[in-house]
Amino acid sequence: MLKYQQIANQIEHYIEQHQLQQGSKLPVLETLMENFSSSKSTIIKALDLLEKKGLIFQVRGSGIFVRRKSRRGYINLLSNQGFKKDLEEFDITTEMISLEIVKPTQEAADNLQIAKDQDVYHVKRIRYISGQTLCLEESYYDKSIVTYLNKQIVTESIFDYIREGLGLNIGFSEMYIKTGKLTDEESEYLKLPTADPKLIMESIFFLANGTPFDFSKVTYNHEQSQFFLLGTGL
Amino acid sequence: MLKYQQIANQIEHYIEQHQLQQGSKLPVLETLMENFSSSKSTIIKALDLLEKKGLIFQVRGSGIFVRRKSRRGYINLLSNQGFKKDLEEFDITTEMISLEIVKPTQEAADNLQIAKDQDVYHVKRIRYISGQTLCLEESYYDKSIVTYLNKQIVTESIFDYIREGLGLNIGFSEMYIKTGKLTDEESEYLKLPTADPKLIMESIFFLANGTPFDFSKVTYNHEQSQFFLLGTGL
Repeated sequence: MLKYQQIANQIEHYIEQHQLQQGSKLPVLETLMENFSSSKSTIIKALDLLEKKGLIFQVRGSGIFVRRKSRRGYINLLSNQGFKKDLEEFDITTEMISLEIVKPTQEAADNLQIAKDQDVYHVKRIRYISGQTLCLEESYYDKSIVTYLNKQIVTESIFDYIREGLGLNIGFSEMYIKTGKLTDEESEYLKLPTADPKLIMESIFFLANGTPFDFSKVTYNHEQSQFFLLGTGL
Repeated sequence: MLKYQQIANQIEHYIEQHQLQQGSKLPVLETLMENFSSSKSTIIKALDLLEKKGLIFQVRGSGIFVRRKSRRGYINLLSNQGFKKDLEEFDITTEMISLEIVKPTQEAADNLQIAKDQDVYHVKRIRYISGQTLCLEESYYDKSIVTYLNKQIVTESIFDYIREGLGLNIGFSEMYIKTGKLTDEESEYLKLPTADPKLIMESIFFLANGTPFDFSKVTYNHEQSQFFLLGTGL
């Protein structure tokens, strides 16, 4: 972890620990430079990272202020795929339905930009929130990149394993959101009436070098799914 | 507009005009500095802005690459409230249902952080996409900030007016997303069967100084609503 990321983490930790409210003023740049024995450019990078994460806002000539989202119980839309850290405030468990090496569907091959005869890991999971079904997740991982998966990894966190186990650098994602009605299969997994509303999220995850490695389709139980998104720099 | 924003716009324009594909390499930092007769720090700020907007990704030691989302016909979730610019690729029209000065509901007062006896503009609009109903929007603007609105502004773009007419600096937003079933009133406005699925987006918009000025509830027609979101820096 780079120095500016460490500093950003420390400031984030400080905000949480002291339960600072929206609008609370943070020390000025010079004080932060002193406190962290760091250069101006390092502090600026740390603050930009915090701003990007929606944790602070900066008003030119006026100061650095804490941002706090006003509601609890919503899942961060941007980091909900990583799940683990962001969902620590929730009681989430994962059940693996299947894990197999297969040839991709046309849709998966297109989204992963691979040929149809290449191997992929096909993972099907259900997530529960406080014992209720939260979502049904179907993911395809390019096996030439994600070379190994097992039941324990799939039940815990695949992304943690990709980062820490495989040492890969996860870069960015595309996410597509639609609504619709549950199919018979989905309603069975989610224990909801057929044709109930659903939220579908399709995501493509890319390594930092721009190669897609994961295509995932998640169907959410409409009763349990509440998301938030912090917009910056409108 | 600051110099780095101008440069970012020019690079964005260049990418669009030349229809550069995902993975296309942009010139190195030194070349960009020369081309734009700018300092290293200005170019870095321009590139960071483009990265934040999901238009490029930077690979340390390797270069700067173009990002292109793979699907068309989806609305940008983060900028869909501004609507105008982002929806230029769509045929969107707006119909005003009502515009009045009222006292806020408890919910609106809470989200705007104002007292219940303060005045707000209450705006109700329907958006159409290619002649089909897209969404029903109900917004509350703190009248002490958004001091004036009229039918023409409400039918065109309220945010353009707030920025350009009132000279206010729009800062950031909180967005909450839920799904559910249409009420009778909503289904009438959206011309859909009652109890059809809906996507609800509640947003709070803040000035750059952290003051909320707009609380808005948008109910989407599930048949027409497809959103995308570009994640960065996972």
